[in-house]
Amino acid sequence: MTFQEIMELHPRPSGVDRDSLIRCIETCLDCSASCTACADASLSEPDFAEMIRVIRLCADCADACDATRRVVTRQTAPNLDLMRTIVQACATACVASAAECDLHAAHHEHCRLCAEVCRRCKQACDDLLAAIG
Amino acid sequence: MTFQEIMELHPRPSGVDRDSLIRCIETCLDCSASCTACADASLSEPDFAEMIRVIRLCADCADACDATRRVVTRQTAPNLDLMRTIVQACATACVASAAECDLHAAHHEHCRLCAEVCRRCKQACDDLLAAIG
Amino acid sequence: MTFQEIMELHPRPSGVDRDSLIRCIETCLDCSASCTACADASLSEPDFAEMIRVIRLCADCADACDATRRVVTRQTAPNLDLMRTIVQACATACVASAAECDLHAAHHEHCRLCAEVCRRCKQACDDLLAAIG
Amino acid sequence: MTFQEIMELHPRPSGVDRDSLIRCIETCLDCSASCTACADASLSEPDFAEMIRVIRLCADCADACDATRRVVTRQTAPNLDLMRTIVQACATACVASAAECDLHAAHHEHCRLCAEVCRRCKQACDDLLAAIG
Repeated sequence: MTFQEIMELHPRPSGVDRDSLIRCIETCLDCSASCTACADASLSEPDFAEMIRVIRLCADCADACDATRRVVTRQTAPNLDLMRTIVQACATACVASAAECDLHAAHHEHCRLCAEVCRRCKQACDDLLAAIG
Repeated sequence: MTFQEIMELHPRPSGVDRDSLIRCIETCLDCSASCTACADASLSEPDFAEMIRVIRLCADCADACDATRRVVTRQTAPNLDLMRTIVQACATACVASAAECDLHAAHHEHCRLCAEVCRRCKQACDDLLAAIG
Repeated sequence: MTFQEIMELHPRPSGVDRDSLIRCIETCLDCSASCTACADASLSEPDFAEMIRVIRLCADCADACDATRRVVTRQTAPNLDLMRTIVQACATACVASAAECDLHAAHHEHCRLCAEVCRRCKQACDDLLAAIG
Repeated sequence: MTFQEIMELHPRPSGVDRDSLIRCIETCLDCSASCTACADASLSEPDFAEMIRVIRLCADCADACDATRRVVTRQTAPNLDLMRTIVQACATACVASAAECDLHAAHHEHCRLCAEVCRRCKQACDDLLAAIG
């Protein structure tokens, strides 16, 4: 995606490993869109009485991913404490929605796919946390 | 990205052409991330006194893209009037930031790239508007 | 709220009537929070099978209000075309969620209250559109 | 604001102290709007070369407040780990922007006011964390 090339052109990068930043942003973009789509599909399922937790936790996860992605994208004058805590919140949101989606993965393929992207995003958050130190 | 597969699994799709929806979402994701990255790079440029409009209009464009992408992702019980007007707002935001980034494209490659992604997103919004009818 | 005092201290205001801006922002803040709360309450109602459209349209309305409020808050170098189209999108979102919440107002007080705040926000959007011209 | 009344009508509240939730949401709403307004005013100041960190950290704080406020508003089937970590991220964002705004409080009244609302929001986050346990 174009945003990666733009990030590589930053005149005063923050020093945080850029590949880890970009990987976290990429997975946050897909995870946010996937969670919005999974919550929405769940709302239309015949068994949506069983899907209330999925709908709620996927909405949370989309919100956490969008905020985290914006903070992580900014390389000017970063605050590493904030970057660390918001990436941790995002990882926690991913774990929560992945766990709930797993419970429905056998009968709803969108939940199986959503759990996978949440886990990839959680991994990218953990890798970025390791890179921040 | 995974979100596309999830959208294709929606149990009760809205009837709006799904390829147009997905293309709009894809470009909104890249345009939002690119505008956040371009505003941030502009804030660190030595000539940032010239970049004030870029910083402002790219922030607006990121906000418009994120909201539009969420609305467009939802296929359950859509309101087509809302879909139409928010996609129009997104297209207008893309035009505004592309025009401003164009003014700086010769000396800031990130602005040249950002103008391009804004125009791709504007095109995807127009195509979706045509598909909605 | 403090944001109003901060807006009045802007060193180079845009010329758009500030009372109309502030009233639109105020109602967008309450409308976004109210729609998030109403969608969430609806998800926990015993008759939530009837609430699917409320849940979806209130989520849309919260997204539209948050993006619109951010764009409208910025007074530096505004683009009036964008301001106009995004405020129109917000007004359209408010009309959609108010109409849906009205259908449930008799048996869910949170829907009655939510419809009211959506209508106040729609009015503030219309007033701002008149002030922009 | 109306959102408080709607939250009090939730049919299956989460058990987290509601006054603490509402106070956190209220201050997140004002803090997000104030940070957006302060970043925007800073971008128009004659000495904005000194304001780069304010502009960046206030943008981060607005993003953290908006995501946190949405997660905290939802009372259906909450995940307390997520609530805790995202409220901590919000508190960290408030501390960062308050500290930077303090440096400019003597010559920019909007920074003095913004630092104050960030500290109120930080306090409301801390109080909510204590209530979650």
